[in-house]
Amino acid sequence: MTTPPRPWPGLFISFEGIDGSGKSTQARQLYESLRSGGHDPLLTREPGGSPGAEEIRALVLQGDPDRWSAETELLLFTAARRDHMERAILPALQAGRTVICDRFADSTRMYQGRGGLRDKVDALHDLMIGIDPDLTLLIDMPAEAGLARAKSRATDEERFEDFGLDLQQRMRDGFLALAAAAPARFRVIDGNRDMDSVARDVHATVLRELAPSS
Amino acid sequence: MTTPPRPWPGLFISFEGIDGSGKSTQARQLYESLRSGGHDPLLTREPGGSPGAEEIRALVLQGDPDRWSAETELLLFTAARRDHMERAILPALQAGRTVICDRFADSTRMYQGRGGLRDKVDALHDLMIGIDPDLTLLIDMPAEAGLARAKSRATDEERFEDFGLDLQQRMRDGFLALAAAAPARFRVIDGNRDMDSVARDVHATVLRELAPSS
Ligand SMILES: Nc1ncnc2c1ncn2[C@@H]1O[C@H](COP(=O)(O)OP(=O)(O)OP(=O)(O)O)[C@@H](O)[C@H]1O
Ligand SMILES: Nc1ncnc2c1ncn2[C@@H]1O[C@H](COP(=O)(O)OP(=O)(O)OP(=O)(O)O)[C@@H](O)[C@H]1O
Ligand SMILES: [Mg+2]
Ligand SMILES: [Mg+2]
Repeated sequence: MTTPPRPWPGLFISFEGIDGSGKSTQARQLYESLRSGGHDPLLTREPGGSPGAEEIRALVLQGDPDRWSAETELLLFTAARRDHMERAILPALQAGRTVICDRFADSTRMYQGRGGLRDKVDALHDLMIGIDPDLTLLIDMPAEAGLARAKSRATDEERFEDFGLDLQQRMRDGFLALAAAAPARFRVIDGNRDMDSVARDVHATVLRELAPSS
Repeated sequence: MTTPPRPWPGLFISFEGIDGSGKSTQARQLYESLRSGGHDPLLTREPGGSPGAEEIRALVLQGDPDRWSAETELLLFTAARRDHMERAILPALQAGRTVICDRFADSTRMYQGRGGLRDKVDALHDLMIGIDPDLTLLIDMPAEAGLARAKSRATDEERFEDFGLDLQQRMRDGFLALAAAAPARFRVIDGNRDMDSVARDVHATVLRELAPSS
Protein backbone atom coordinates (compact mmCIF):
# COMPACT_ATOMS: atom_id res chain seq x y z
CA MET A 1 0.00 0.00 0.00
CA THR A 2 1.40 3.42 -0.92
CA THR A 3 0.33 6.44 1.08
CA PRO A 4 0.51 10.00 -0.28
CA PRO A 5 3.34 12.09 1.16
CA ARG A 6 2.35 14.18 4.18
CA PRO A 7 2.08 17.92 3.61
CA TRP A 8 4.41 18.55 6.59
CA PRO A 9 7.42 16.73 8.06
CA GLY A 10 5.96 16.20 11.56
CA LEU A 11 3.60 13.40 12.62
CA PHE A 12 0.17 14.46 13.90
CA ILE A 13 -1.22 12.03 16.51
CA SER A 14 -4.56 12.34 18.31
CA PHE A 15 -5.96 10.39 21.24
CA GLU A 16 -9.67 9.68 21.24
CA GLY A 17 -12.09 7.61 23.29
CA ILE A 18 -14.90 7.83 25.79
CA ASP A 19 -14.66 9.84 29.02
CA GLY A 20 -12.24 8.33 31.49
CA SER A 21 -10.71 5.92 28.98
CA GLY A 22 -7.21 7.23 29.72
CA LYS A 23 -6.56 9.64 26.82
CA SER A 24 -4.88 12.32 28.94
CA THR A 25 -2.86 9.75 30.89
CA GLN A 26 -1.64 8.06 27.72
CA ALA A 27 -0.98 11.29 25.84
CA ARG A 28 1.27 12.51 28.64
CA GLN A 29 2.95 9.09 28.89
CA LEU A 30 3.69 9.10 25.16
CA TYR A 31 5.03 12.63 25.39
CA GLU A 32 7.44 11.59 28.14
CA SER A 33 8.56 8.46 26.26
CA LEU A 34 9.25 10.37 23.06
CA ARG A 35 11.21 12.99 24.98
CA SER A 36 13.25 10.28 26.65
CA GLY A 37 13.97 8.96 23.17
CA GLY A 38 15.42 12.32 22.10
CA HIS A 39 12.38 13.69 20.30
CA ASP A 40 10.85 17.14 20.87
CA PRO A 41 7.09 16.49 20.70
CA LEU A 42 4.31 19.00 21.33
CA LEU A 43 1.70 17.84 23.84
CA THR A 44 -1.58 19.71 23.44
CA ARG A 45 -5.31 19.24 23.98
CA GLU A 46 -8.77 20.18 22.81
CA PRO A 47 -10.90 22.09 23.32
CA GLY A 48 -8.17 24.66 23.90
CA GLY A 49 -4.48 24.23 23.17
CA SER A 50 -3.61 27.81 22.19
CA PRO A 51 -4.21 31.03 24.16
CA GLY A 52 -7.13 32.11 21.96
CA ALA A 53 -8.66 28.63 21.90
CA GLU A 54 -8.38 28.39 25.69
CA GLU A 55 -10.35 31.63 25.98
CA ILE A 56 -13.04 30.27 23.67
CA ARG A 57 -13.05 26.99 25.65
CA ALA A 58 -13.62 28.95 28.86
CA LEU A 59 -16.49 30.87 27.24
CA VAL A 60 -18.14 27.61 26.13
CA LEU A 61 -17.70 25.69 29.37
CA GLN A 62 -18.50 28.34 31.96
CA GLY A 63 -22.04 29.06 33.08
CA ASP A 64 -25.33 27.28 32.50
CA PRO A 65 -25.14 24.15 30.28
CA ASP A 66 -28.09 25.48 28.24
CA ARG A 67 -26.36 28.77 27.65
CA TRP A 68 -25.39 27.84 24.08
CA SER A 69 -27.38 25.82 21.58
CA ALA A 70 -25.73 22.76 20.03
CA GLU A 71 -25.11 24.74 16.82
CA THR A 72 -23.53 27.73 18.57
CA GLU A 73 -21.35 25.41 20.64
CA LEU A 74 -20.25 23.63 17.46
CA LEU A 75 -19.26 26.96 15.89
CA LEU A 76 -17.36 28.04 19.01
CA PHE A 77 -15.46 24.75 19.19
CA THR A 78 -14.65 25.03 15.49
CA ALA A 79 -13.34 28.57 16.03
CA ALA A 80 -11.18 27.26 18.89
CA ARG A 81 -9.89 24.41 16.72
CA ARG A 82 -9.05 26.78 13.87
CA ASP A 83 -6.98 28.94 16.22
CA HIS A 84 -5.31 25.92 17.81
CA MET A 85 -4.49 24.48 14.39
CA GLU A 86 -3.06 27.73 13.00
CA ARG A 87 -1.14 28.87 16.04
CA ALA A 88 0.07 25.62 17.62
CA ILE A 89 -0.43 22.42 15.59
CA LEU A 90 0.62 23.45 12.07
CA PRO A 91 3.72 25.42 13.11
CA ALA A 92 4.95 22.41 15.11
CA LEU A 93 4.26 19.96 12.27
CA GLN A 94 5.99 22.27 9.79
CA ALA A 95 8.99 22.37 12.11
CA GLY A 96 9.09 18.57 11.97
CA ARG A 97 7.84 17.97 15.50
CA THR A 98 5.48 15.18 16.51
CA VAL A 99 2.19 16.66 17.74
CA ILE A 100 0.28 14.71 20.40
CA CYS A 101 -3.25 16.04 20.73
CA ASP A 102 -5.59 14.94 23.54
CA ARG A 103 -8.90 14.84 21.58
CA PHE A 104 -9.35 16.41 18.14
CA ALA A 105 -12.08 16.47 15.48
CA ASP A 106 -13.35 12.94 16.19
CA SER A 107 -14.54 14.08 19.62
CA THR A 108 -16.55 16.81 17.89
CA ARG A 109 -17.96 14.25 15.45
CA MET A 110 -19.13 12.18 18.41
CA TYR A 111 -20.22 14.75 20.98
CA GLN A 112 -21.37 17.73 18.90
CA GLY A 113 -22.57 15.41 16.12
CA ARG A 114 -25.40 14.01 18.24
CA GLY A 115 -29.02 15.01 17.70
CA GLY A 116 -28.87 15.13 13.91
CA LEU A 117 -25.94 17.55 13.66
CA ARG A 118 -23.41 15.08 12.26
CA ASP A 119 -23.78 16.36 8.67
CA LYS A 120 -23.17 19.94 9.82
CA VAL A 121 -20.15 18.82 11.85
CA ASP A 122 -18.63 17.15 8.81
CA ALA A 123 -19.38 20.04 6.45
CA LEU A 124 -17.96 22.57 8.89
CA HIS A 125 -14.82 20.49 9.36
CA ASP A 126 -14.27 20.23 5.61
CA LEU A 127 -14.90 23.95 5.15
CA MET A 128 -12.93 25.47 8.03
CA ILE A 129 -10.44 22.88 9.33
CA GLY A 130 -9.65 20.52 6.48
CA ILE A 131 -7.02 18.36 8.20
CA ASP A 132 -7.18 15.16 10.21
CA PRO A 133 -4.38 13.53 12.21
CA ASP A 134 -1.98 11.15 10.52
CA LEU A 135 -2.66 8.68 13.31
CA THR A 136 -5.54 8.47 15.77
CA LEU A 137 -5.18 6.21 18.79
CA LEU A 138 -8.61 5.15 19.97
CA ILE A 139 -8.33 4.10 23.61
CA ASP A 140 -11.20 1.64 23.75
CA MET A 141 -12.87 0.10 26.78
CA PRO A 142 -16.29 -0.87 28.10
CA ALA A 143 -18.53 2.08 28.92
CA GLU A 144 -18.84 1.04 32.59
CA ALA A 145 -15.08 1.02 33.07
CA GLY A 146 -14.63 4.49 31.58
CA LEU A 147 -17.47 5.92 33.63
CA ALA A 148 -16.06 4.46 36.85
CA ARG A 149 -12.66 6.02 36.14
CA ALA A 150 -14.07 9.40 35.13
CA LYS A 151 -16.17 9.55 38.28
CA SER A 152 -13.23 8.72 40.54
CA ARG A 153 -11.37 11.79 39.27
CA ALA A 154 -11.85 15.33 40.59
CA THR A 155 -12.53 18.08 38.06
CA ASP A 156 -14.13 21.51 37.89
CA GLU A 157 -15.54 21.01 34.43
CA GLU A 158 -18.19 18.39 35.10
CA ARG A 159 -20.50 19.26 32.23
CA PHE A 160 -19.09 16.85 29.70
CA GLU A 161 -19.03 13.92 32.05
CA ASP A 162 -22.56 14.02 33.41
CA PHE A 163 -23.87 11.86 30.65
CA GLY A 164 -24.48 8.45 32.16
CA LEU A 165 -23.92 4.93 30.98
CA ASP A 166 -26.27 4.91 28.02
CA LEU A 167 -24.58 7.82 26.27
CA GLN A 168 -21.15 6.50 27.17
CA GLN A 169 -22.12 3.22 25.47
CA ARG A 170 -23.32 4.98 22.34
CA MET A 171 -20.13 7.05 22.25
CA ARG A 172 -18.00 3.91 22.45
CA ASP A 173 -19.90 2.35 19.56
CA GLY A 174 -19.62 5.60 17.62
CA PHE A 175 -15.86 5.83 18.07
CA LEU A 176 -15.47 2.21 16.97
CA ALA A 177 -17.57 2.96 13.88
CA LEU A 178 -15.36 5.96 13.06
CA ALA A 179 -12.29 3.73 13.40
CA ALA A 180 -13.80 1.08 11.15
CA ALA A 181 -14.60 3.71 8.52
CA ALA A 182 -11.03 5.11 8.46
CA PRO A 183 -8.74 2.14 9.13
CA ALA A 184 -5.68 3.82 7.60
CA ARG A 185 -5.77 6.55 10.23
CA PHE A 186 -7.09 4.75 13.33
CA ARG A 187 -5.48 2.21 15.63
CA VAL A 188 -7.73 0.76 18.33
CA ILE A 189 -5.88 0.25 21.62
CA ASP A 190 -7.37 -1.89 24.40
CA GLY A 191 -7.48 0.62 27.27
CA ASN A 192 -8.92 -1.78 29.83
CA ARG A 193 -5.53 -2.85 31.14
CA ASP A 194 -3.05 -1.38 33.59
CA MET A 195 -1.53 1.95 32.50
CA ASP A 196 1.90 0.56 31.67
CA SER A 197 0.55 -2.15 29.38
CA VAL A 198 -1.53 0.40 27.50
CA ALA A 199 1.44 2.78 27.30
CA ARG A 200 3.71 0.10 25.87
CA ASP A 201 1.13 -0.68 23.21
CA VAL A 202 0.73 3.02 22.36
CA HIS A 203 4.47 3.54 22.18
CA ALA A 204 5.07 0.56 19.91
CA THR A 205 2.26 1.70 17.59
CA VAL A 206 3.70 5.19 17.32
CA LEU A 207 7.26 3.95 16.73
CA ARG A 208 5.98 1.90 13.81
CA GLU A 209 4.51 5.09 12.31
CA LEU A 210 7.58 7.22 12.99
CA ALA A 211 9.77 4.67 11.21
CA PRO A 212 7.40 3.15 8.65
CA SER A 213 10.15 1.26 6.78
CA SER A 214 11.20 -0.84 9.78
CA MET B 1 -44.55 39.11 -9.11
CA THR B 2 -45.53 36.56 -6.48
CA THR B 3 -43.31 36.12 -3.45
CA PRO B 4 -43.31 32.96 -1.33
CA PRO B 5 -45.00 33.36 2.06
CA ARG B 6 -42.63 34.24 4.89
CA PRO B 7 -41.95 31.46 7.39
CA TRP B 8 -42.86 33.81 10.28
CA PRO B 9 -45.40 36.59 10.76
CA GLY B 10 -42.90 39.36 11.65
CA LEU B 11 -40.89 41.47 9.19
CA PHE B 12 -37.09 41.18 9.40
CA ILE B 13 -35.32 44.40 8.39
CA SER B 14 -31.56 44.99 8.34
CA PHE B 15 -29.58 48.20 7.86
CA GLU B 16 -26.34 47.96 5.92
CA GLY B 17 -23.77 50.36 4.52
CA ILE B 18 -20.24 51.62 4.98
CA ASP B 19 -18.90 52.94 8.28
CA GLY B 20 -20.48 56.19 9.30
CA SER B 21 -23.27 56.01 6.72
CA GLY B 22 -25.92 56.43 9.39
CA LYS B 23 -27.12 52.84 9.96
CA SER B 24 -27.38 53.14 13.75
CA THR B 25 -28.98 56.58 13.55
CA GLN B 26 -31.57 55.39 11.04
CA ALA B 27 -32.25 52.10 12.79
CA ARG B 28 -33.07 53.93 16.01
CA GLN B 29 -35.14 56.50 14.14
CA LEU B 30 -37.19 53.76 12.47
CA TYR B 31 -37.64 52.02 15.80
CA GLU B 32 -39.05 55.23 17.33
CA SER B 33 -41.33 55.88 14.35
CA LEU B 34 -42.79 52.37 14.41
CA ARG B 35 -43.36 52.61 18.15
CA SER B 36 -45.14 55.94 17.69
CA GLY B 37 -47.30 54.20 15.12
CA GLY B 38 -48.39 51.60 17.68
CA HIS B 39 -46.02 48.80 16.67
CA ASP B 40 -43.77 46.87 19.05
CA PRO B 41 -40.53 46.44 17.07
CA LEU B 42 -37.29 44.87 18.32
CA LEU B 43 -34.20 47.04 17.77
CA THR B 44 -31.02 45.00 17.78
CA ARG B 45 -27.50 45.03 16.33
CA GLU B 46 -24.60 42.91 15.16
CA PRO B 47 -22.11 41.76 16.11
CA GLY B 48 -23.91 41.15 19.38
CA GLY B 49 -27.61 41.52 20.04
CA SER B 50 -28.10 38.73 22.61
CA PRO B 51 -26.23 38.17 25.88
CA GLY B 52 -24.17 35.28 24.49
CA ALA B 53 -23.45 37.07 21.22
CA GLU B 54 -22.35 40.19 23.10
CA GLU B 55 -19.83 38.08 25.02
CA ILE B 56 -18.50 36.64 21.78
CA ARG B 57 -18.38 40.14 20.28
CA ALA B 58 -16.30 41.32 23.25
CA LEU B 59 -13.92 38.38 22.82
CA VAL B 60 -13.43 39.20 19.12
CA LEU B 61 -13.01 42.95 19.50
CA GLN B 62 -10.82 43.17 22.59
CA GLY B 63 -7.05 42.91 22.42
CA ASP B 64 -4.58 42.94 19.56
CA PRO B 65 -6.15 43.18 16.06
CA ASP B 66 -3.97 40.23 14.93
CA ARG B 67 -5.18 38.11 17.79
CA TRP B 68 -7.53 36.12 15.57
CA SER B 69 -7.03 35.05 11.98
CA ALA B 70 -9.67 36.04 9.43
CA GLU B 71 -11.04 32.48 9.50
CA THR B 72 -11.30 32.30 13.30
CA GLU B 73 -12.94 35.72 13.40
CA LEU B 74 -15.45 34.55 10.78
CA LEU B 75 -16.31 31.50 12.89
CA LEU B 76 -16.70 33.60 16.03
CA PHE B 77 -18.97 36.11 14.30
CA THR B 78 -21.02 33.24 12.88
CA ALA B 79 -21.35 31.73 16.38
CA ALA B 80 -22.51 35.14 17.65
CA ARG B 81 -25.03 35.43 14.80
CA ARG B 82 -26.38 31.94 15.46
CA ASP B 83 -27.00 32.82 19.11
CA HIS B 84 -28.51 36.20 18.24
CA MET B 85 -30.77 34.59 15.64
CA GLU B 86 -31.99 31.79 17.95
CA ARG B 87 -32.41 33.80 21.12
CA ALA B 88 -33.54 37.22 19.89
CA ILE B 89 -34.43 37.51 16.20
CA LEU B 90 -36.48 34.36 15.52
CA PRO B 91 -38.55 34.52 18.74
CA ALA B 92 -39.50 38.12 17.92
CA LEU B 93 -40.38 37.30 14.29
CA GLN B 94 -42.44 34.30 15.41
CA ALA B 95 -44.32 36.58 17.80
CA GLY B 96 -45.17 38.80 14.84
CA ARG B 97 -42.83 41.66 15.77
CA THR B 98 -40.83 43.70 13.27
CA VAL B 99 -37.11 43.16 13.86
CA ILE B 100 -34.76 46.05 13.03
CA CYS B 101 -31.18 44.85 12.93
CA ASP B 102 -28.22 47.26 12.69
CA ARG B 103 -25.95 45.20 10.37
CA PHE B 104 -26.49 41.50 9.61
CA ALA B 105 -24.97 38.92 7.26
CA ASP B 106 -24.21 41.40 4.45
CA SER B 107 -21.66 43.12 6.67
CA THR B 108 -19.94 39.75 7.13
CA ARG B 109 -20.04 39.17 3.37
CA MET B 110 -18.27 42.51 2.89
CA TYR B 111 -15.84 42.71 5.81
CA GLN B 112 -15.00 39.06 6.59
CA GLY B 113 -15.38 38.13 2.91
CA ARG B 114 -12.28 40.10 1.90
CA GLY B 115 -9.00 38.40 1.04
CA GLY B 116 -10.49 35.43 -0.77
CA LEU B 117 -12.80 34.30 2.03
CA ARG B 118 -16.08 35.19 0.34
CA ASP B 119 -16.83 31.59 -0.69
CA LYS B 120 -16.29 30.40 2.88
CA VAL B 121 -18.51 33.21 4.20
CA ASP B 122 -21.33 32.16 1.88
CA ALA B 123 -20.96 28.44 2.58
CA LEU B 124 -20.88 29.04 6.34
CA HIS B 125 -23.97 31.25 6.15
CA ASP B 126 -25.90 28.62 4.19
CA LEU B 127 -24.80 25.87 6.58
CA MET B 128 -25.24 27.54 9.98
CA ILE B 129 -27.51 30.59 9.58
CA GLY B 130 -29.72 29.97 6.57
CA ILE B 131 -31.89 33.09 6.78
CA ASP B 132 -31.61 36.56 5.31
CA PRO B 133 -33.73 39.60 6.14
CA ASP B 134 -36.99 40.20 4.31
CA LEU B 135 -35.82 43.73 3.62
CA THR B 136 -32.31 45.23 3.68
CA LEU B 137 -31.97 49.00 3.66
CA LEU B 138 -28.60 49.93 2.19
CA ILE B 139 -27.73 53.43 3.38
CA ASP B 140 -25.53 54.50 0.51
CA MET B 141 -23.20 57.47 0.31
CA PRO B 142 -19.78 58.46 -1.04
CA ALA B 143 -16.88 56.89 0.83
CA GLU B 144 -15.45 60.30 1.84
CA ALA B 145 -18.71 61.37 3.46
CA GLY B 146 -19.01 58.18 5.51
CA LEU B 147 -15.40 58.37 6.65
CA ALA B 148 -15.77 61.99 7.74
CA ARG B 149 -18.84 61.10 9.81
CA ALA B 150 -17.29 58.01 11.35
CA LYS B 151 -14.18 59.95 12.34
CA SER B 152 -16.20 62.73 13.96
CA ARG B 153 -17.75 60.23 16.33
CA ALA B 154 -16.13 59.00 19.54
CA THR B 155 -15.89 55.23 20.11
CA ASP B 156 -13.81 52.75 22.05
CA GLU B 157 -13.91 50.09 19.35
CA GLU B 158 -11.75 51.72 16.71
CA ARG B 159 -10.55 48.53 15.05
CA PHE B 160 -13.22 48.27 12.39
CA GLU B 161 -12.99 51.91 11.38
CA ASP B 162 -9.26 52.26 10.87
CA PHE B 163 -9.50 51.22 7.28
CA GLY B 164 -9.05 54.40 5.25
CA LEU B 165 -10.67 55.73 2.14
CA ASP B 166 -9.62 53.04 -0.30
CA LEU B 167 -11.24 50.23 1.64
CA GLN B 168 -14.31 52.36 2.37
CA GLN B 169 -14.66 52.87 -1.42
CA ARG B 170 -14.37 49.16 -2.14
CA MET B 171 -16.92 48.41 0.59
CA ARG B 172 -19.38 50.87 -0.94
CA ASP B 173 -19.00 49.24 -4.35
CA GLY B 174 -19.36 45.82 -2.76
CA PHE B 175 -22.58 46.72 -0.95
CA LEU B 176 -24.02 48.15 -4.18
CA ALA B 177 -23.10 44.93 -5.98
CA LEU B 178 -24.85 42.86 -3.29
CA ALA B 179 -27.93 45.05 -3.69
CA ALA B 180 -27.88 44.66 -7.47
CA ALA B 181 -27.62 40.88 -7.10
CA ALA B 182 -30.63 40.63 -4.75
CA PRO B 183 -33.03 43.39 -5.83
CA ALA B 184 -36.07 41.74 -4.22
CA ARG B 185 -34.50 42.09 -0.78
CA PHE B 186 -32.52 45.33 -1.02
CA ARG B 187 -33.63 48.96 -1.17
CA VAL B 188 -30.85 51.50 -1.72
CA ILE B 189 -31.42 54.69 0.28
CA ASP B 190 -29.45 57.86 -0.45
CA GLY B 191 -27.82 58.54 2.93
CA ASN B 192 -26.03 61.71 1.88
CA ARG B 193 -28.83 63.99 3.01
CA ASP B 194 -29.92 65.42 6.34
CA MET B 195 -31.09 62.84 8.89
CA ASP B 196 -34.77 63.67 8.65
CA SER B 197 -34.89 63.31 4.87
CA VAL B 198 -33.19 59.93 5.08
CA ALA B 199 -35.53 58.87 7.91
CA ARG B 200 -38.65 59.81 5.94
CA ASP B 201 -37.40 57.76 2.99
CA VAL B 202 -36.65 54.78 5.24
CA HIS B 203 -40.03 55.00 6.94
CA ALA B 204 -41.96 55.19 3.67
CA THR B 205 -40.04 52.20 2.31
CA VAL B 206 -40.79 50.10 5.37
CA LEU B 207 -44.48 51.06 5.43
CA ARG B 208 -44.77 49.81 1.85
CA GLU B 209 -43.38 46.45 2.98
CA LEU B 210 -45.53 46.23 6.11
CA ALA B 211 -48.66 46.79 4.00
CA PRO B 212 -47.73 45.31 0.63
CA SER B 213 -51.25 45.45 -0.77
CA SER B 214 -51.58 49.24 -0.44
N1 LIG C 1 -5.04 2.04 32.60
C1 LIG C 1 -5.58 2.61 33.66
N2 LIG C 1 -5.96 1.86 34.72
C2 LIG C 1 -6.55 2.44 35.77
N3 LIG C 1 -6.81 3.76 35.91
C3 LIG C 1 -6.45 4.55 34.89
C4 LIG C 1 -5.83 4.02 33.72
N4 LIG C 1 -5.60 5.06 32.86
C5 LIG C 1 -6.07 6.18 33.48
N5 LIG C 1 -6.57 5.88 34.69
C6 LIG C 1 -7.19 6.82 35.65
O1 LIG C 1 -8.52 7.02 35.19
C7 LIG C 1 -8.89 8.37 35.32
C8 LIG C 1 -9.23 8.91 33.92
O2 LIG C 1 -8.04 8.92 33.13
P1 LIG C 1 -7.76 10.11 32.12
O3 LIG C 1 -8.00 11.43 32.75
O4 LIG C 1 -6.43 9.86 31.49
O5 LIG C 1 -8.93 9.80 31.08
P2 LIG C 1 -9.46 10.69 29.87
O6 LIG C 1 -9.77 9.74 28.78
O7 LIG C 1 -8.48 11.78 29.58
O8 LIG C 1 -10.80 11.28 30.48
P3 LIG C 1 -11.63 12.56 29.98
O9 LIG C 1 -12.33 12.15 28.72
O10 LIG C 1 -12.64 12.79 31.06
O11 LIG C 1 -10.66 13.69 29.80
C9 LIG C 1 -7.70 9.08 35.98
O12 LIG C 1 -7.93 9.16 37.35
C10 LIG C 1 -6.53 8.17 35.65
O13 LIG C 1 -5.50 8.27 36.62
N1 LIG D 1 -27.87 62.22 7.73
C1 LIG D 1 -26.84 62.59 8.51
N2 LIG D 1 -26.26 63.80 8.35
C2 LIG D 1 -25.23 64.16 9.13
N3 LIG D 1 -24.70 63.42 10.11
C3 LIG D 1 -25.23 62.19 10.31
C4 LIG D 1 -26.33 61.73 9.54
N4 LIG D 1 -26.64 60.48 9.95
C5 LIG D 1 -25.79 60.18 10.97
N5 LIG D 1 -24.95 61.22 11.19
C6 LIG D 1 -23.87 61.27 12.17
O1 LIG D 1 -22.77 60.58 11.60
C7 LIG D 1 -22.14 59.76 12.57
C8 LIG D 1 -22.24 58.30 12.13
O2 LIG D 1 -23.63 57.89 12.16
P1 LIG D 1 -24.01 56.44 12.65
O3 LIG D 1 -23.32 56.08 13.91
O4 LIG D 1 -25.50 56.33 12.63
O5 LIG D 1 -23.39 55.61 11.42
P2 LIG D 1 -23.19 54.04 11.30
O6 LIG D 1 -23.47 53.71 9.88
O7 LIG D 1 -23.98 53.33 12.34
O8 LIG D 1 -21.63 53.91 11.57
P3 LIG D 1 -20.81 52.56 11.99
O9 LIG D 1 -20.73 51.73 10.76
O10 LIG D 1 -19.46 53.08 12.36
O11 LIG D 1 -21.57 51.92 13.12
C9 LIG D 1 -22.84 60.03 13.89
O12 LIG D 1 -22.11 61.01 14.60
C10 LIG D 1 -24.20 60.56 13.45
O13 LIG D 1 -24.77 61.43 14.41
MG1 LIG E 1 -8.67 13.86 29.55
MG1 LIG F 1 -23.39 51.99 13.87
